[in-house]
Amino acid sequence: MNAPATLPVKYAEIAAASERLAGHAARTPVLTSRAVDARTGARVFFKCENFQRMGAFKFRGAFNAMVQLPQEARSRGVLAYSSGNHAQAVALAGRELGIRATIVMPQEAPRVKLEATRGYGAEVVLYDERTTSREDLAQRIASERGLTLIPPFDHPHIVAGQGTAAKELFEEAGALDYLFVPCGGGGLISGCAVAAAELSPGCKVIGVEPEAGDDATRSFKSKTLHTCHNPETIADGARTHSLGKITFPLVLAYVHDMITVSDRELLAGMRYLWERMKIVVEPTGALGAAGLFERGLPVAGGRVGVLISGGNVDLQAICRLL
Amino acid sequence: MNAPATLPVKYAEIAAASERLAGHAARTPVLTSRAVDARTGARVFFKCENFQRMGAFKFRGAFNAMVQLPQEARSRGVLAYSSGNHAQAVALAGRELGIRATIVMPQEAPRVKLEATRGYGAEVVLYDERTTSREDLAQRIASERGLTLIPPFDHPHIVAGQGTAAKELFEEAGALDYLFVPCGGGGLISGCAVAAAELSPGCKVIGVEPEAGDDATRSFKSKTLHTCHNPETIADGARTHSLGKITFPLVLAYVHDMITVSDRELLAGMRYLWERMKIVVEPTGALGAAGLFERGLPVAGGRVGVLISGGNVDLQAICRLL
Repeated sequence: MNAPATLPVKYAEIAAASERLAGHAARTPVLTSRAVDARTGARVFFKCENFQRMGAFKFRGAFNAMVQLPQEARSRGVLAYSSGNHAQAVALAGRELGIRATIVMPQEAPRVKLEATRGYGAEVVLYDERTTSREDLAQRIASERGLTLIPPFDHPHIVAGQGTAAKELFEEAGALDYLFVPCGGGGLISGCAVAAAELSPGCKVIGVEPEAGDDATRSFKSKTLHTCHNPETIADGARTHSLGKITFPLVLAYVHDMITVSDRELLAGMRYLWERMKIVVEPTGALGAAGLFERGLPVAGGRVGVLISGGNVDLQAICRLL
Repeated sequence: MNAPATLPVKYAEIAAASERLAGHAARTPVLTSRAVDARTGARVFFKCENFQRMGAFKFRGAFNAMVQLPQEARSRGVLAYSSGNHAQAVALAGRELGIRATIVMPQEAPRVKLEATRGYGAEVVLYDERTTSREDLAQRIASERGLTLIPPFDHPHIVAGQGTAAKELFEEAGALDYLFVPCGGGGLISGCAVAAAELSPGCKVIGVEPEAGDDATRSFKSKTLHTCHNPETIADGARTHSLGKITFPLVLAYVHDMITVSDRELLAGMRYLWERMKIVVEPTGALGAAGLFERGLPVAGGRVGVLISGGNVDLQAICRLL
């Protein structure tokens, strides 16, 4: 593990983010389960970001980025494009901070997500995915209105914010031998890996991706950035095209391994969390647990952390899957 | 509220149960939700017994009763009849204490419950509900084998054990103005009400029943024991025929009001807990929350406790309901 001085996020920025988030983000519970310990032979600590405000870790990064905007940018407002948890995170952070938020979402986004985003007071701009590039549309609206774009993962302030989840986990559980973290664009895992390197230096940080969207795994193994367009997976939060300019070097420097799970394995892991641990976890949120359960890493006898990244589900859709 | 000296359970017995349970029962988390606080205008504390071992509060009472059996009775073993959480509670407490447990269950019990009970090491005896009285069968097996019957609710040691859930809630949340508790046979609510009278004397304890099985509500209002045979409700843990000899006088002495919710209201409350609080709660377990959400009691501005009693669901069956 090299951590060259040129890397874009250092632990001090996670510690600073943690102070900014105090009183705004929830300090989410760390749950344990005798059933999981018996199944794995390890002592397992689940950091439950499904209990975070708006239902996912995304609030941490969005708030940490938006609270650092200069007053002028704050008063003009922010913009994000997302059909998922980042939309709600920016909307809620906007409401907390008194910053007007505009969210660009596809017309086909689930109604529950549209309503949640509007419920946090954001303006939602819908577009037709078949005819419009969301990046172009977002760029046009942002420049017309002078809005600051809040990216979903590839920004040092976002990464530092997400890393506070692992910081809290190590503070509560102590040093760990393994930490399993879902990986999409890499904002969460790179922040968590930076925190691990500082707070639990021996801890092996394992990123878990859906098999169909294994771009980060291929990028990690080959040390060359791979992309994956609209992979077919139930892990909708990990359908990102690739790691980013900020997150890729952090993943290379701090993450120990990347693994994948099939949708079938992911669903089984998610179901286990619902039935045995009684927590509602979205498919993407269960990637870390599925990686622990299914890949047979030598965790027995050790202390293991699992990052549960979110719990925003459409119950009707989940029931169809189950 | 009168608490005559002749009542069968006093707070000291709950405190003693609490010491017996230390290291065996989980000290379950108390969760809060900004969404719930905004919805109710109150500060609401959810005591999450869905996170208890075997997935429900029942472990507390079963363990507290079985750990107090004389050595001779322990070595002969125990028996319970239940198709629900009490079966798993007795089975698990038996495994913890090295006491052989026999559970009488209907042939039609959900396979997941049969397997869980056997998984804890209990012997399961199946019977045909159409031809056999479970009480008679249980009595016969108990006397043939010299087993001690562990009743599901109507015993001072069971009641004292269940009361430790409320004791922990008050210790963590402080004094409360209201406490909403699911009510079936009354073991949980009477134990919780005894704890409330000691630890938060001004707290109004409200029992919540399914509309179709409102025997305890009618018994409470009329001060005469009413029964209700096999009510049609999704709250399967509250299908008990009536309060018991031990629990009825405790409910009369310590509970402030009894209310009912329809299955539709119960389902809506349960769904809200899943979607907004990200916790898996069984229908019976959501009675307290549904009572808080639906009955419009004047809780605004106050501090409110809600006992979530369990989270053991058959996901397939729940998906059909939703």
